[in-house]
Amino acid sequence: MIEGIEHIGIAVRSIEEARAFYEALGLEVEAIEEVPHEGVRVALIPCGAARIELLESTADDSPVGKFLAKRGPGLHHLCLETDDVKADDATLREAGFRVLRAEPTRGAGGCWVQFVHPASTGGVLLELSQRSDEESD
Amino acid sequence: MIEGIEHIGIAVRSIEEARAFYEALGLEVEAIEEVPHEGVRVALIPCGAARIELLESTADDSPVGKFLAKRGPGLHHLCLETDDVKADDATLREAGFRVLRAEPTRGAGGCWVQFVHPASTGGVLLELSQRSDEESD
Repeated sequence: MIEGIEHIGIAVRSIEEARAFYEALGLEVEAIEEVPHEGVRVALIPCGAARIELLESTADDSPVGKFLAKRGPGLHHLCLETDDVKADDATLREAGFRVLRAEPTRGAGGCWVQFVHPASTGGVLLELSQRSDEESD
Repeated sequence: MIEGIEHIGIAVRSIEEARAFYEALGLEVEAIEEVPHEGVRVALIPCGAARIELLESTADDSPVGKFLAKRGPGLHHLCLETDDVKADDATLREAGFRVLRAEPTRGAGGCWVQFVHPASTGGVLLELSQRSDEESD
């Protein structure tokens, strides 16, 4: 079951420049994390029950680097929180929707995640994330 | 104060085609509204504390129609819920951020809304929305 929006990912040229707007609104950067294997630095900004994530590329050939080169900065992906990503994965496959990984994998913070191709969602790179404290098996 | 993500707007070529994915995940279209002066049909999909809005253009020269022609379907705008949009409007102006309307105006459902230009937000068309049951004056 989908429980809500987990986070919205925004591709930015510079976290240092982009954060000023969100801070002007009273939001706070909780942490900045480096994810070397994805070539990205991430600023985590809690926003009610969800989070805004500012994504800065650290490598031109990273997914975020390619997105920035092609489309410029802007909304990059939408992450929905689920209580059972394996069930969602199976449901989507059966219905013919295109998921990106062979099976849900461990993501940031130990969550189980799967991604859905924009061709299946009306143009949106969509992430499904299940908290690690809920067993997926 | 920003209270959370109010909704995420997704530009789609067809609500009828795009809704199938979200319905496969167990989400439900609560209503479909026509907004003639903005040239858009909107499918409202509750998602936890927030909402996903599928935006289908009803006129090629509408904002969503132009977005679709230029960028194709995908994430269109992010709406944050605030308890005082007039205060946010003043704060952003003072800090030199570019808001789109001369002052907050009544939006869908009687909310007070203001928009911030993507140049001020790291590439995101950002809406600020205050519920109508909270007085803005």
